[in-house]
Amino acid sequence: MEDIIVKYYEEPKLKNPVLVEGLPGVGNVGKLAAEHLADKLKAKKFASIFSKHFPPQILIGEDGVVRLVSNDLYYHKSKTGQDLIILSGDYQGTSQEGQYDLSYEVLDILEKYGGKTVYTLGGWSVGKIVTEPRVLGAATSPEFVEKLKAAGVEFSKDEPAGGIVGAAGLLLGLGQIRDMDAACLMGETSGYFSDPRSAQTVLAALGKLLDVEIDFTELEEHAKEIDDLTSKLNEMKPVVEPSGDELKYIG
Amino acid sequence: MEDIIVKYYEEPKLKNPVLVEGLPGVGNVGKLAAEHLADKLKAKKFASIFSKHFPPQILIGEDGVVRLVSNDLYYHKSKTGQDLIILSGDYQGTSQEGQYDLSYEVLDILEKYGGKTVYTLGGWSVGKIVTEPRVLGAATSPEFVEKLKAAGVEFSKDEPAGGIVGAAGLLLGLGQIRDMDAACLMGETSGYFSDPRSAQTVLAALGKLLDVEIDFTELEEHAKEIDDLTSKLNEMKPVVEPSGDELKYIG
Amino acid sequence: MEDIIVKYYEEPKLKNPVLVEGLPGVGNVGKLAAEHLADKLKAKKFASIFSKHFPPQILIGEDGVVRLVSNDLYYHKSKTGQDLIILSGDYQGTSQEGQYDLSYEVLDILEKYGGKTVYTLGGWSVGKIVTEPRVLGAATSPEFVEKLKAAGVEFSKDEPAGGIVGAAGLLLGLGQIRDMDAACLMGETSGYFSDPRSAQTVLAALGKLLDVEIDFTELEEHAKEIDDLTSKLNEMKPVVEPSGDELKYIG
Amino acid sequence: MEDIIVKYYEEPKLKNPVLVEGLPGVGNVGKLAAEHLADKLKAKKFASIFSKHFPPQILIGEDGVVRLVSNDLYYHKSKTGQDLIILSGDYQGTSQEGQYDLSYEVLDILEKYGGKTVYTLGGWSVGKIVTEPRVLGAATSPEFVEKLKAAGVEFSKDEPAGGIVGAAGLLLGLGQIRDMDAACLMGETSGYFSDPRSAQTVLAALGKLLDVEIDFTELEEHAKEIDDLTSKLNEMKPVVEPSGDELKYIG
Repeated sequence: MEDIIVKYYEEPKLKNPVLVEGLPGVGNVGKLAAEHLADKLKAKKFASIFSKHFPPQILIGEDGVVRLVSNDLYYHKSKTGQDLIILSGDYQGTSQEGQYDLSYEVLDILEKYGGKTVYTLGGWSVGKIVTEPRVLGAATSPEFVEKLKAAGVEFSKDEPAGGIVGAAGLLLGLGQIRDMDAACLMGETSGYFSDPRSAQTVLAALGKLLDVEIDFTELEEHAKEIDDLTSKLNEMKPVVEPSGDELKYIG
Repeated sequence: MEDIIVKYYEEPKLKNPVLVEGLPGVGNVGKLAAEHLADKLKAKKFASIFSKHFPPQILIGEDGVVRLVSNDLYYHKSKTGQDLIILSGDYQGTSQEGQYDLSYEVLDILEKYGGKTVYTLGGWSVGKIVTEPRVLGAATSPEFVEKLKAAGVEFSKDEPAGGIVGAAGLLLGLGQIRDMDAACLMGETSGYFSDPRSAQTVLAALGKLLDVEIDFTELEEHAKEIDDLTSKLNEMKPVVEPSGDELKYIG
Repeated sequence: MEDIIVKYYEEPKLKNPVLVEGLPGVGNVGKLAAEHLADKLKAKKFASIFSKHFPPQILIGEDGVVRLVSNDLYYHKSKTGQDLIILSGDYQGTSQEGQYDLSYEVLDILEKYGGKTVYTLGGWSVGKIVTEPRVLGAATSPEFVEKLKAAGVEFSKDEPAGGIVGAAGLLLGLGQIRDMDAACLMGETSGYFSDPRSAQTVLAALGKLLDVEIDFTELEEHAKEIDDLTSKLNEMKPVVEPSGDELKYIG
Repeated sequence: MEDIIVKYYEEPKLKNPVLVEGLPGVGNVGKLAAEHLADKLKAKKFASIFSKHFPPQILIGEDGVVRLVSNDLYYHKSKTGQDLIILSGDYQGTSQEGQYDLSYEVLDILEKYGGKTVYTLGGWSVGKIVTEPRVLGAATSPEFVEKLKAAGVEFSKDEPAGGIVGAAGLLLGLGQIRDMDAACLMGETSGYFSDPRSAQTVLAALGKLLDVEIDFTELEEHAKEIDDLTSKLNEMKPVVEPSGDELKYIG
């Protein structure tokens, strides 16, 4: 078996397509954002990527019908002269080598459709609840950095320390080597749970950059549900009881 | 060395063969079922699969003669116009990549013999003793799901959560990509020991689906032996003594 | 880089060579035996095997000159019409896949020199000091088993449970697939230290099987040194003092 | 994607180039030394090595512009008739196989430029602060050992026990197989922190061997800073307080 199998359901004709990647990661921000975008734009799935680099697992639908875990590609024909290819999926590659392989293959597909621009979406974990998440950026050239800044994306010397790992990073790093233009948009997130507010903020920045209108109603509702849950948890004060260790001193 | 070596002992002529897979897994249900089936049908071993994806190990027979660990393929010529290929063996692939490789190779072999239907057998662990195990199913198409339901196989929205991993899952997932029809039959099992009763229940469903009569005498005997053992264990009440921690407070 | 690099220092002409393998393992029995054999027969190193499957390590000689870790092949021209190829080295392959690859390559080399018989040497750990170790056997055919029995090699239904892993097992398992004759000789050993007595017993059996005389003086001396050490350790009775836990109750 | 991608920024003409390797490792000695050398000689980066054997990571510069983690090659045209190729980078290969692959590729590049001599730089951890670190050596031939001794490099029977692992070792081991001349210079270091003094000592020896003058001002300053820090830590005596365990006896 080949390491990666790309199965095409359709071969669309695309104009200067821009790749938007959102795979599972910190706060699930990238995946939430990419799937919301594909959903709202009614983007059409045209290919699936199956690979040894994903877990050996099938998922079962409500009707009992299975599907092999995958990454999936959707396209959206835009009026701006710049079509979209959206990448989301069940997993990132589970090994270091797999991550390189898969990102390289995705760039091959983008190139095949004549595209040379990439946006990757992800979360940037700050370890505490963030009510108004910022969007942090990184890009393959100073020109692209300026373009992001103009759209309100922030840049910070110390963040993220250690750089960006996984597909959100590799698509930039490998894109750069292949003379593509790529940027990463990272939404601040606590990292404690799936974070629709951070996803919304990231998508808002992306919408500006791509000149695409996105309806956020559902993401906002999800974010409010999580806000309610968080408030309730804060109201429940823990009852402090002496521990076993303390009891020892009583005797 | 090639990653996988298939050694043929015979090249049988088969009619529309159906693959039945049962490899080691939860409650050993799949392996017990597949080996019982091969035994009762007097199926003939025609090929062995050796691979780097299996442990580097030989097993020693009672006569001191060794054999390399393997997966093995058996065939059974049926009067129903649908012959069988039965797959069992010592191990599943030990790595994720190996699992994909091996399942793909098995489908290659099935295709070579003109087959395009797969049944995988496995156990579904419920973490407690089950006296009347159900058979849960999953399949590659709604039509196949209906066929399973008609044979008494149950479908449950929440089970198994997380899907199916290993060969029992991959043969469906990869089969689907290759336009084959595949279904998984999972017998409920505690998962605590090798479970002949669950294997029998799975085989009963398979027998109906394939229109094959199977003698269950031996599996039933094994199941009763395990029932007896379980009863005895339940009768033996644990003697509760104060632990060291409690003794500290006595002093 | 190729996964395995074989560097030949010489291309000897050999008659029906028999491969004798002894690599690091339980009680270091195989390696001790193979190196002793090569030494006593003044066997000549004719090839080294370097591989990604070994650790990325060089060893430094007393003169400061380095060498990459390797497996090494020696030949011995015999008067019996059956020459020897002896395999020893620093490591076994560190991964499962590597173990398969390396054993397969060694059989390729044996085949290239027209050989089709293999003896692998190893230790069989019994977890206690053994004063008169037995030699246990396993082989690829009933005929070979009989031949071993005639040379005093023992066969035991329950030993070794779990079969034989590593090169000592794979050379049999892969040899069998390639229609070679192969046997494993396992010396009983405590497994606690490098065991020259077990190595000697294994070599004595091999000498009978190959009709080769071997001088055991050095192995016997090493074995006696270890006997002395073991006796001294046994004489030193441990001084039992109350532990901290017990002291707590004194107070 | 190929396992290793070498991207050339320039194809310099070099005379008998000598490879000097310094990658991250014990006390960061090799990397510090190689980068200092490249800096002081104003060596020019002419190629980058990207690989699946490195982590799937990009680093972000202060300007927000990213780069994929890499190893990098610099050249220096020398008046001695012996040009230099300096190798440094972010990581060593993260797997055993990757380490072999990368070192082999680097020797391919050296060979392409007509070079056949290699110096690898590293640290040798002694587990305590060393005020006057020695430089220990190892080489691929007795002649090279003598050359190192003449330059003040020391050789010690017992050091380093276990040989040399990683790129600093493999470039010697693989170089030897490929009939190259290679030596490793190891600076003694505590191994507790990045050690500029050890790096300086190693470079001083290398400078003699290559007949290259190197300005050490910066390394000396860094070494003094670390000396100051170490002194202060030594002056701060730990305040000993009774532990919880001891308190138990008070009651």
